[in-house]
Amino acid sequence: MATAASSSPQRAPRRRLGAEERRDQLVGLGLELIKERPFDQVLVDEVIAAAGISKGLLFHYFPSKRAFQLAVMEAATTELVARLTPADELDVLEQLHQGLDAYVAYIEENQAGYLAIVRAVGSDDALLDLFERTRDAIVDIIVGGLVRTGLAKDEDPMLRLAARAWTASVEESTFLWLRDRPCTREQLLEMLTRSALQLAPLVADLSGRTPR
Amino acid sequence: MATAASSSPQRAPRRRLGAEERRDQLVGLGLELIKERPFDQVLVDEVIAAAGISKGLLFHYFPSKRAFQLAVMEAATTELVARLTPADELDVLEQLHQGLDAYVAYIEENQAGYLAIVRAVGSDDALLDLFERTRDAIVDIIVGGLVRTGLAKDEDPMLRLAARAWTASVEESTFLWLRDRPCTREQLLEMLTRSALQLAPLVADLSGRTPR
Repeated sequence: MATAASSSPQRAPRRRLGAEERRDQLVGLGLELIKERPFDQVLVDEVIAAAGISKGLLFHYFPSKRAFQLAVMEAATTELVARLTPADELDVLEQLHQGLDAYVAYIEENQAGYLAIVRAVGSDDALLDLFERTRDAIVDIIVGGLVRTGLAKDEDPMLRLAARAWTASVEESTFLWLRDRPCTREQLLEMLTRSALQLAPLVADLSGRTPR
Repeated sequence: MATAASSSPQRAPRRRLGAEERRDQLVGLGLELIKERPFDQVLVDEVIAAAGISKGLLFHYFPSKRAFQLAVMEAATTELVARLTPADELDVLEQLHQGLDAYVAYIEENQAGYLAIVRAVGSDDALLDLFERTRDAIVDIIVGGLVRTGLAKDEDPMLRLAARAWTASVEESTFLWLRDRPCTREQLLEMLTRSALQLAPLVADLSGRTPR
């Protein structure tokens, strides 16, 4: 975000920002950095240099380096979930394909950070909790889509289980696809779209057969 | 393993063991402990007390506490993979069902350790590498079964991708099933068996349509 009047074009303008605006600016700078490296290597020094502020001011908004990194990760997952939310007017097949396309595109854009995270979440409880919430939000989108299009009943807890399992298969295959490229991007999307479509009838059959 | 002559029944007998036998004994004691707690909380002190040996002797076999814990994890995953290897005389449906049953049973037996590991592998490269090899061994079993029964061609790299994706969905749904129990054990096994059976025709169709 450029300001109209800047006397020093080589450095970021030291304009006075409101608290929320400043917080958003710093998180936004972090979001740019995690495209190129794992989030725990996002250095506070680079962010304050880019923002043209002191370290003290950053720690005024975020109590610790870790808190700042977590805020960046939280913003990244919010951005991801927003991109996955499908347009209502599409049919379920188009929604799924579009959502998967957006997911894979997002991961491609943020490859360095993503590859590190998927395999090494670490035993950080705040991060585990964030990913848990992100997965749940993605499951909401999937189950919501299946229900809206009449393919499933949303009160079935087994459908949520199946959707989470499918989400894990998406994470895993995207990770492997980026690493090994064993097929085309379109084959990957087709495989995942079709396996999602097989979920709803499978769960309906199993739940119906053995009502709990 | 009890010895015939032990003068002190309250303590483990201090019988002289060969190097390999002693190593196996210590790893075996570790395997018992990880049933009840995460592997990185398996304490060297408990193991040496149970074995009736000194800490120095344990460190003679394992250069560090971490090396010992990794040896225990390696033994655990070897045990898991052995249990998943199906009997040749079964058909593919029975093999899948039996393999899944063995997997879920193994996780149920080692629940505390497993739940901690799945969510918090940590950024330990040796452990990540071990899990990578374990997943590959499991994919070998699945792809081998599909090929042996004529359901798939093994030279298709997309089939390995699909099998890894399915394996991730098994890990995720077993984790959630243990935590939330949203359906019966049999429903879980059926869902995973059937979704595996859908893999091979899906991949054959996609690979055939767009040859690489």
